[in-house]
Parts: sequence; structure tokens; C-alpha cells
Amino acid sequence: MTNWQSARQARDARLEAGARIANGKIVAVHDATRLLEAVMRPGDKVCLEGDNQKQADLLCAALLAVDVSKVNSLHMVQSGVVLPEHLDVFDRGVAKKLDYAYSGPQAARIATMLFGGKIELGAVHTYLELFARYFIDLTPNVALIVAVSADRDGNLYTGPNTEDTPTIVEATAFKDGIVIAQVNEIVERVPRVDIPADRVHFVVEAGKPFFVEPLFTRDPSAITETQILTAMLALKGVYAPYGVRRLNHGIGFSTAAIELLLPTYGERLGLKGKIATHFALNPHPALIPAIESGWVTQIHSFGSEVGMEDYIRARPDVYFTGPDGSLRSHRAFCQVAGHYACDMFIGSTLQIDLQGNSSTVTTARIAGFGGAPNMGADARGRRHPSEPWILAGREANPDSPAPLRRGRKLVVQIGETFGEKNAPLFVEKLDAISLAEKLNLELAPVMIYGDDVTHIITEEGIANLLLCRSPSEREQAIRGVAGYTDVGRRRDKNEVQRLRERGVIRRPEDLGIDPLDADRNMLAARSIKDLVRWSGGLYAPPSKFRSW
Amino acid sequence: MTNWQSARQARDARLEAGARIANGKIVAVHDATRLLEAVMRPGDKVCLEGDNQKQADLLCAALLAVDVSKVNSLHMVQSGVVLPEHLDVFDRGVAKKLDYAYSGPQAARIATMLFGGKIELGAVHTYLELFARYFIDLTPNVALIVAVSADRDGNLYTGPNTEDTPTIVEATAFKDGIVIAQVNEIVERVPRVDIPADRVHFVVEAGKPFFVEPLFTRDPSAITETQILTAMLALKGVYAPYGVRRLNHGIGFSTAAIELLLPTYGERLGLKGKIATHFALNPHPALIPAIESGWVTQIHSFGSEVGMEDYIRARPDVYFTGPDGSLRSHRAFCQVAGHYACDMFIGSTLQIDLQGNSSTVTTARIAGFGGAPNMGADARGRRHPSEPWILAGREANPDSPAPLRRGRKLVVQIGETFGEKNAPLFVEKLDAISLAEKLNLELAPVMIYGDDVTHIITEEGIANLLLCRSPSEREQAIRGVAGYTDVGRRRDKNEVQRLRERGVIRRPEDLGIDPLDADRNMLAARSIKDLVRWSGGLYAPPSKFRSW
Repeated sequence: MTNWQSARQARDARLEAGARIANGKIVAVHDATRLLEAVMRPGDKVCLEGDNQKQADLLCAALLAVDVSKVNSLHMVQSGVVLPEHLDVFDRGVAKKLDYAYSGPQAARIATMLFGGKIELGAVHTYLELFARYFIDLTPNVALIVAVSADRDGNLYTGPNTEDTPTIVEATAFKDGIVIAQVNEIVERVPRVDIPADRVHFVVEAGKPFFVEPLFTRDPSAITETQILTAMLALKGVYAPYGVRRLNHGIGFSTAAIELLLPTYGERLGLKGKIATHFALNPHPALIPAIESGWVTQIHSFGSEVGMEDYIRARPDVYFTGPDGSLRSHRAFCQVAGHYACDMFIGSTLQIDLQGNSSTVTTARIAGFGGAPNMGADARGRRHPSEPWILAGREANPDSPAPLRRGRKLVVQIGETFGEKNAPLFVEKLDAISLAEKLNLELAPVMIYGDDVTHIITEEGIANLLLCRSPSEREQAIRGVAGYTDVGRRRDKNEVQRLRERGVIRRPEDLGIDPLDADRNMLAARSIKDLVRWSGGLYAPPSKFRSW
Repeated sequence: MTNWQSARQARDARLEAGARIANGKIVAVHDATRLLEAVMRPGDKVCLEGDNQKQADLLCAALLAVDVSKVNSLHMVQSGVVLPEHLDVFDRGVAKKLDYAYSGPQAARIATMLFGGKIELGAVHTYLELFARYFIDLTPNVALIVAVSADRDGNLYTGPNTEDTPTIVEATAFKDGIVIAQVNEIVERVPRVDIPADRVHFVVEAGKPFFVEPLFTRDPSAITETQILTAMLALKGVYAPYGVRRLNHGIGFSTAAIELLLPTYGERLGLKGKIATHFALNPHPALIPAIESGWVTQIHSFGSEVGMEDYIRARPDVYFTGPDGSLRSHRAFCQVAGHYACDMFIGSTLQIDLQGNSSTVTTARIAGFGGAPNMGADARGRRHPSEPWILAGREANPDSPAPLRRGRKLVVQIGETFGEKNAPLFVEKLDAISLAEKLNLELAPVMIYGDDVTHIITEEGIANLLLCRSPSEREQAIRGVAGYTDVGRRRDKNEVQRLRERGVIRRPEDLGIDPLDADRNMLAARSIKDLVRWSGGLYAPPSKFRSW
């Protein structure tokens, strides 16, 4: 007779073994490794909470210290591979296989380990896609999560960095998995219940704050005049004509420049209330001047941002907050919002090829996808119209009959023709393709595909790919904004001129923008200190951003 | 000076007004309307929980009874418009504007009211898309939700029909909205915490079960031999060659036939363990024989299904269940899973045009979209490969360079060439387009767009649209499986023959299927009673499905 409760029985056996080490649900820090040895089995699928920002660092260290004869060959299914220890577990043989989404600071080492066969790669995902698989074929047996505090029953308070936690717990706890939380402290009563106690099996009191990184802070003092020029082009050439109100901004100085131009240049263009009112966005400090100037109606956030806590708490009309007054972020829902409820995604990249495909991968660094492809893809399941979406769809397919013509998500790539270390933004062949060949991947790690990109903005102008009617037009439109890069210099000048006459390419002067006006004085804040001032002293930047 | 706490202050004022009627959080049934009058304001965005299945019926009746001078012009933002009262609130002037996703039984009346100007239409959405907007520009001021039980603190137990509740509450409670729950009963301690108390402001004890509809039960006795033939074609001609393991099935007799053929025909084809192992799916009773025969590894569900409670409770290895033992469904996460973690969506429709666009709308009925477009669209944000996805992508773009070639979601439409009341499945022009013209809609309510459809299956054969290289090939491929409908009879016979030689069209005989074998004896269960037997008596069908 079939046993239909095998997972539950296995879970109960694990819980029993863990209970011997715990006092109720509480496990002492020095017993954390013993707890993991008690509840884990070789080959388990394990989600070690490594989010975009916050990290279950204590449980990670505990995992690294397990007896490899007891716990080994784990299949890690976690969104962020961020800490060195996230890779050390592979070096030690504790883990074997990896499915992930983002690996910012570990991008170089992860590449080396993949080349060296130290890691068996499942796949690189977007966040939402990995979360999706948690419910279908990558359901964790054990989740090692992180929160600010717990009560003795196991109710968890995540504070503003709720991030992935509810999603991980949902998939694990309701499929007979084990949920272990590290918390900074155990308290009598949590300020709010982010995760109910009956989904949490063990709690380890770390006694110190978990690691969390300020990923979304861009110092205005580092914004260049070229970035200001591209930001002006974006506002006047894309935000304004499409009337983009619901949007997501990627990370980077170019979008930070846009945020800082809203109360100055945007105001001058008369765009207040007409653009950039509703965001799916982390709490970017660079948006403070626009918020304070009354531009922003509402922001839903993937995670929080270090230093923004008090500011958010004082601006509940703008942010989502809980009964305790602090931010409630939620990566999964915010990614859904970015996919389906936003009309534009705008972000930067490292390389763009002649078809418009872009990638942040170099042959030595596999950074992962994060959330960009989910937001920077045309959401073909969308069925509600909006003006920007309808207008973009009409530009792409002017001849198709109106009621059958779908709209298009605006997907904008913004950057300087030469990026960091003078590397050209435009290339004939993406490094991502060389990497795919080298690693024998079925798919090159393309961040945004050319057929999803609608606009490319550089200091030379805007290429509107929606208006291109053939691959060769698209290629010339891209070459036409690629400046003095090799790709740019190989343009067909006559064809580029024709594209400009058709409005496919628009130069600053075509938009009435004088590049000489692109001056740092246009930024609503020119330093981190300016941002603190705008916030009325509520924004408390991390020390690495303080020059005073 | 700007007030940044206006929403919170407004909420606190509403809570205070509500508190006068409540005892703690508890409000008596006869005070429900008074409560709504106390906490609602004209023009509020209100989510009256109307899910695919369960309904906040008591709160709906309470809303209908409000004094219209106090509460009026509401903007309803709810996924399901299912109960007559959901439309009565518009007739009475309590509500004015509507954003929704699904309107099954009210499809005819909603059409009449839209034509008559009784409802101001925001948009018709997919579920996930509407949820997305809850976080961006359609955030509810008040959510009227429904659960099985509550404790006195306000912790809620939803039972197996968790459905939309966590998503609605997340958007409302964390943006300073008011959450009011109707529950069947108030208990000392809830069996599990589906919604933590600090997100719930008022609880009304209904004293009786909320309305919930068995939407996903298909009586095997009504399955026709034509449907069995199309199911055989699907299994041998699509599931097998692509090796589809992760999938979603739409509602309908054709997919029910597939489910009932797995342990018989599927077994004979040697497909066990190779196809249909992981589902994003409601607990379809028709899947019981396949589950009992060991075909299914795991199912995550949007909602539950009436009568399946005990069966699910006894099969936790397959379903997601909570610490109380009953199903934990979650529509938002399951839709995400259907979008990003499934390789195939297969469903039925009412009309398909010559481009492959399909719709369930007729000129007199606006049924809404539900979840199909979200799952039946190519997920362009997806970045992880799988065999079915890669294979479909290769068929669609054989000439593009492999590492830059994306895969494709398999989107399959299955049906009989003549459907209910002998209406042809294939039409020159969708009724959806006539409706869009009549209502002056920017977008025709197309369920699945032709450019997302990969296969169309009828009793005449399979049209593989991935292999079509031009619009005219696509048209002839569709005509070539359209049987004796007008569309089918107007085929170019030579062209259809050429498409068949290329494998674009495959007839039953091309697949080694004899239509005479399509016999009801092939169904693993031929009646509801058979399903009960397969379940070992655990499945308890609702009375309307019992003939004994």
C-alpha cells in the first residue's frame, strides 16, 4: 500500500531529532550546527535565505560547519549567492547543486567554480521565476531564514526587509518542509507578525543584527554630466510623450540622475503629476527630493534600504508600512507588480549587441539576473490597457487592427556609450555568448532580449526600436546612438540620417535639449548630505556613504 | 507643511468609528451594515472578496444594504464578479466603477449593465494582473474578506480555500486600509494562522458557512468519445514528444479526459514518470485516478474544490497542506507558478479565428479572463531552460543561433470542431471583436492571442503552429484541423496536404491512433462514483454531482 504521508513522516522524524536540541522552538547559537545536522539529510533541497539585501549569515556559518559525513550534496535553491560562505559550502562538499537568481559580489568566484566543476548548475533565474519553481519542482526541504525578532511561540518580525521570507516560508512550511529562523533577538511580543508561528519550527537567537547591504544607494556626487544628459533625454523623449506614470527603475547612476531631475528639469517641463507617480521600487534615497516635492503617490518595494528606515516610517502615505510603522516589503508581490502593473522598466546594462540583446555578464563574472528580465520583458499575459502601453503597441504595429493590437511594455536601456574603465557599451558579440559556449550552456545569459527592448538612450540620442521595421533598421538605429564605439563608427550614415528623419533616432537637438545645459546644478541633490537635508534629517546614510 | 500621514489618520478615524460598533474586533451580524457605513467613504476602492470559488457573501449582503447617502460611488476592485449581489451594488448606486478579472455566472448581466452604462468599466484583467495593480494603482481602501474561523484576536483560518485572501490583505493592511473579515465561527484557537491578527481590523461571525462553488468538477459520464480522441492526440502528439512534466490544465471536459486517460492510455504509451508529474492546478477530482496510480509527484493549487477536502488531507505527499492537515491554496503564487514554472498550458475555448486568437466572449456574455491569459502566454521573462521549452523554441526559430534562441511555453488549445449547441469552434471573426466595437473598447477581450498559441487540437488532428513560417501557413494549418466548420471547408487542400507532409498538421493516423479506439472504456473513471471508488471513499462529491 502506498504511503502518502512519507514527507510528513520524514518531517516529523526531523522535528523530533531537532527537538532534542531545542528548548521549545528555541535553539542556542552554539547548537545551531548540531540542529542542522539533526534535521538535514544528504541531497536535501535547501533554501539558505540569501536575498538581494539581507542574509541569514549565522545559519550560513552554521551550515558551513556541519559534519560533511552527515550533511552533504545539498541542492541549494536560493535567490542570492552573496556571501563568500554561500560558495564555501560547495567547496566543502556540503552542497553540490545550485539554482539561483543573483550573485552580485560573488559573480567572479561563481564563474570560476562553475568552470572548475565545483558547482553543478541547475539554472540561473529571475527572482520571480525561482520563487515560481519553489511551488512546482524546486520546493525546499529545509528553509534557513532570517528575521529581526521572534517571540517564544515562533512568530517572526522581519522589520522592513521582509523581502523573500514569506514566499520561502509558504513553499517550505506548507509542503512538509522544515523552517529554521535566525533572529537578532527573542522578545516578549513581536512588533508585528510577518510570519505566523505555526510555519516556523526552530528559532536561533543570533544576538546580533544579520548582514544587510545598502544596494540601492547611489551617491549623487558621482553622477556625471553625461548621465544627466541621458536623464534629460529620457524624461523629455520617453517619460513625457508616453506619459509614463507606473514604472520601475533599475539600479544605477543613470536612473538615479532621472530621480534627481524630477523636481528640477521635470518640474520645468510641467510633468509633475503626469509622470512617475506610482513605483515598484526599493526605497531609493535618490528619490527623496521627488517625494518631498510631491511627485510620488505610492511606492511598493521589493526590499528596504539601509538608512531609509526613519524616513519611510515618517512617510506612510507613500510607502507600504505595517502596524509597527516600518516598511513592509515583499519581493514576490513587487516583482509581480513590476511585471504586470508597470508600463515601463528602465535600467542600465554592460553590453548591448546589434540586435539589442543586452547582458551584465562578462566572461569572468556571472552576475545572475535578479529581477530585471521579469520587469524588462513584454508581459504578454497582460490584458488591461493604459495610455503608455497602447501608444507603444501602436508604434510597434501601426497596421494591425486596433482591437486585436496588444500594447507593449516600455523597456528602456540607458547608458553612456563608453562605461566604466572606458569599456564600450555596444559590442558585435556579447560576452554572454562566449560564456555560454565555454560552459556549454543551452542559453546564453541574456539579461534583456532585443525583441523586448523598446528604447536605447545614450548621450548621442534615443533609438526608438518600436519604430524599426526590419532587423537591419534596428541595427542601424542602435549603431546610430552608439557614439564613437566601433559599433557606432560602423554605421551607415545615410540610413541613420533617414532613421532620424523618421523620428526613429532622436538627437538632443531634435528634442530641444542643449547638451551644455546638462549640468550638475540641475540635480535636486548633489551629495548624500543634500539627500539627508531633503529628508529633514530622517535619512541616515550608512557610514560608507558619509564624507562628513 | 505636507501631511504624510493622511491615509493613516483617515484609517484611524475609520477604525474609531468602527470601534463604537465592535466588541474588541468582533462585530455582530446585525451590525455589519452599520460597520460598513462607519468605516467606508464615498468613492473608496473596495475589494469585496469574490474569488474564483469562495465568496464573502454575508459582507456582500451587508454592503448592498448600506444607506446610499453615506456609502456610494465605490470603486470595486475584486477578482470575481460571481454573485447577483455583486452587480446589485451597482444597480443601487453603492458602487460605480469596476475593475475585475472573472465573471462566470454573471457574464450576461455584466454585459447588459456595461452596455446600459450602469457600470463604469476600469478594465478586465487576469487574476495576477489585478493583484499586481493592488500594489501599484488599485490599492483597496477597504477589504471585505472571508475565512472559516477567527480567534478573538482576529487571527484567521481560511481552510483549504485560502485563494486570494493573503494577497488582498497584504495590499490593504500594509497601505493603511481597513480589513474586515466574515468568518463562519469564532473559536478559541484557530487550527492554523492563515492571516495574522494584526492585519485584521474587524471580524463578523456569520454563523454559517460562506458560499463556495465546485467549479473544477467535471462528471466523467459526460465525456464524449470525440473528447477522448482529442485527449489521445494530446497525449501522444504533444505531451509525449515534448516530455511535458510541469503544466497547468484549464477547466473543461477535454482536459478532464486527458487526466482520466493517464492511467490507461498514458500507461500503455509508457509515459508514466515522463509526463504530467508536477502541476499548478486546482484539486481536480478527475485527477484522482492518476494520483492513485502514482503519476503525480506534486500539485500546487490556486484554490480548493468542494468535496476534495478529505482526499487532500490524506494525500499530503501530493498537495500543499498546513499544520492542521488541510490544503493551503494560494492563487497569486500558483498563478506565478503557472506563468514561470510550467512548460505547458492546455485549455479549451469558445472561438478561434484564422490567426489563432481565441476568446470565451460572446456578444451577450463578458466572462472575463480569470487566469488563462497569464498561463497561456509566452513567459518572456523566463530564463531557466527545460527540455520541452527548448524544443518548442527550436521548432519556432530553427535558424536563430542556439545560445540566443529562447524557448517557448507550450500553449495548447483543445476542443471539438463543433462545440455546445453545435456552435463552430472556428470563426472568421471573433465575437470579442464585435463586442469591442460595440462597447468602444481599446482592446478586444482576447483570451489567448494567436502568436502565443503553439498547438490546436481537434478530433481532426493537431496543428503545430510553431512550425508555420508565414501568416498564410498558419491560417491553412488552422483550417486544416477545423473539420466541417465553414472555416475548415474553405481550406486550400493542396496547402493543407503539404503542411501535413511537413508534420505541421498531424492526423490521428499519422500518430498511429485509430479513432475507433477512442472509447469511453478507456477512461480510468467513467462516473463520479468511479472517482469516489478510486479515492477509497475519501472524495465526497457535492450533491449535485451525485446520481445515487
